[in-house]
Amino acid sequence: MKIAVLPGDGIGTEIVAEAVKVLKALDLKFELEEAKVGGAAYDAHGHPLPEATLTLAKESDAILFGAVGDWKYDKLDRPLRPEQAILGLRKALGLFANFRPAICYEQLTHASSLKPELVAGLDILIIRELTGDIYFGQPRGRRVAPDGHFPGAEEAFDTMRYTRPEIERIARVAFEAARQRGKRVTSVDKANVLETFQLWKDVVTDVHKDYADVALDHMYVDNAAMQLVKAPKKFDVLVTGNMFGDILSDEASMLTGSIGMLPSASLNDKKQGLYEPSHGSAPDIAGKGVANPLATILSTAMMLRFSLNQPEAADRIEAAVKKVLAQGLRTPDIHSQGTTKVGTRDMGEAVVKAL
Amino acid sequence: MKIAVLPGDGIGTEIVAEAVKVLKALDLKFELEEAKVGGAAYDAHGHPLPEATLTLAKESDAILFGAVGDWKYDKLDRPLRPEQAILGLRKALGLFANFRPAICYEQLTHASSLKPELVAGLDILIIRELTGDIYFGQPRGRRVAPDGHFPGAEEAFDTMRYTRPEIERIARVAFEAARQRGKRVTSVDKANVLETFQLWKDVVTDVHKDYADVALDHMYVDNAAMQLVKAPKKFDVLVTGNMFGDILSDEASMLTGSIGMLPSASLNDKKQGLYEPSHGSAPDIAGKGVANPLATILSTAMMLRFSLNQPEAADRIEAAVKKVLAQGLRTPDIHSQGTTKVGTRDMGEAVVKAL
Ligand SMILES: CC(C)[C@H](C(=O)O)[C@@H](O)C(=O)O
Ligand SMILES: CC(C)[C@H](C(=O)O)[C@@H](O)C(=O)O
Repeated sequence: MKIAVLPGDGIGTEIVAEAVKVLKALDLKFELEEAKVGGAAYDAHGHPLPEATLTLAKESDAILFGAVGDWKYDKLDRPLRPEQAILGLRKALGLFANFRPAICYEQLTHASSLKPELVAGLDILIIRELTGDIYFGQPRGRRVAPDGHFPGAEEAFDTMRYTRPEIERIARVAFEAARQRGKRVTSVDKANVLETFQLWKDVVTDVHKDYADVALDHMYVDNAAMQLVKAPKKFDVLVTGNMFGDILSDEASMLTGSIGMLPSASLNDKKQGLYEPSHGSAPDIAGKGVANPLATILSTAMMLRFSLNQPEAADRIEAAVKKVLAQGLRTPDIHSQGTTKVGTRDMGEAVVKAL
Repeated sequence: MKIAVLPGDGIGTEIVAEAVKVLKALDLKFELEEAKVGGAAYDAHGHPLPEATLTLAKESDAILFGAVGDWKYDKLDRPLRPEQAILGLRKALGLFANFRPAICYEQLTHASSLKPELVAGLDILIIRELTGDIYFGQPRGRRVAPDGHFPGAEEAFDTMRYTRPEIERIARVAFEAARQRGKRVTSVDKANVLETFQLWKDVVTDVHKDYADVALDHMYVDNAAMQLVKAPKKFDVLVTGNMFGDILSDEASMLTGSIGMLPSASLNDKKQGLYEPSHGSAPDIAGKGVANPLATILSTAMMLRFSLNQPEAADRIEAAVKKVLAQGLRTPDIHSQGTTKVGTRDMGEAVVKAL
């Protein structure tokens, strides 16, 4: 089994280092190979996703990804910006199924913006389609407007597109996941306005016929954005397209108050996957040794479960994380009175010890 | 001055009736003319936006709109569904500038899902472009996929589009509005992925040169969805496209905990406007006399200020609403211990009395 380790930018290197310690402490046989990605790769090789990094990713069973991005790359042309690396990896490896859990840990309930009773015990799984939609749809670009409100004016445009098989496969992923948990799927669309999401709704409804044991409901995206704030615990599995999933999964993760705790997985149909924390590269705290490594460590647990067929090792990591939380150890982002503030390295080492 | 009164469906008729009482009590000279819209119009005339209703709307200085929609119309073909009426009115009248305040009333702070300290005194203005973007962009439809992941498969597609002048005019609306309040604009985009929103960001930056007294920052839509939950009071005016504005304005309104209190305005370049509560038709409570009429009443205040050039009358209505809240009157949606529960009609009449 081979794992590509791509720390990236900002706090990426620090948090991935701790996750690697945890992986190594498991005493399983993996080959780990590291490569540059994002701004770090641009600095070293002139491209955010160099050929060597892409080849390594393709040849690996799983990718452990830190984070990419820094303000200093904002002025680059779009194809050279750090985030193109993550878009490029998703596309090249066909990582169409993005799993983003939004979980509120018992000891961290108080950290949420929401009243504790609304988030205590929260456990939502957002499944976002990751290789289609307006993110990748052609044609797109700038032109002279051929018609519309201001024909002849400078215009930019993008194309939202989904085919039936793309919707079918992500719907199946959602129904299968729901079977393992609360047995309820909410499919989020904007079928009242968009042709693309009328097809989405139709296809999800069709696929549901194979999953009679799972309850399905449909919700408009604007309403979903509201219901997440109003009563997030009403959701079990939420499935939606790339664009809506981007917005709703970030909203949901912030509801928990501890985005520094949330892992994610992006899988293709061969169960090859990219695993990364839900938070970003946080350049403002990079290099200070204060970043929370737990989201990245929990991402390795998802990796062991989904791509490396080591569910027991995944359980061990998750139990170890719960243990360090119970011990009262907290990085600054989740620190509160009465708990012990620790840095990135101490947190990583505490997890290793707790394994 | 002529006002078209379009109560629509569900609680629409009840809440608009109270707003009309308030308008009449002002003793100003308006002509009010009522017409059917939405499901009610479909039932009576076979179309959600009959020709006569559209003509009335066009000939009026302002439209007082209740709400449209009911589950019983869900099975109709899309062009006949109630929400097509509102899309049709926006398009036909060119109502490109949608104002959606998210205000947390002092007495209702406890009703929010968020901790009181995060929303006390909240006062955000979301400005949503309302006649462009993927809502109206052509081409759109179903077809056989010409390329992509599954060429030959059944596909649906939509087109996101914005021209420079469309972005310019909504940016000006936002900067002008910010001048009257906190002097800060946050422009929300997804320029890291979408061509349309790279142009959006470029044009807003250009227009900003004429508004040196207003601060501008740019935020990705996924981050905006997070920051609204984390620290909503950091925003002053938020400006964005039709689709992102739909999602974020609903999220923001729910943060206040009292969406039954929030008005909205949709204006064209002649200051002709459509005024409606931010909430929907709530068919579950329709006809029971319990709906909150205050959002609709506050929408008439916006109408007086923006379209009818009667700012003093607008102030009077807003002061009267504050007074009834101070008196402790509450419809069920905002009721809490120690306050007096009243119905739709009593609330409307209390506002009339407080004028
Ligand atoms: C960096 C960006 C392109 C990316 C996205 O929008 O998909 C990020 O926001 C995410 O959600 O992983
Ligand atoms: C009914 C629907 C078409 C509409 C929209 O999406 O614009 C509504 O959600 C709104 O925000 O006014």
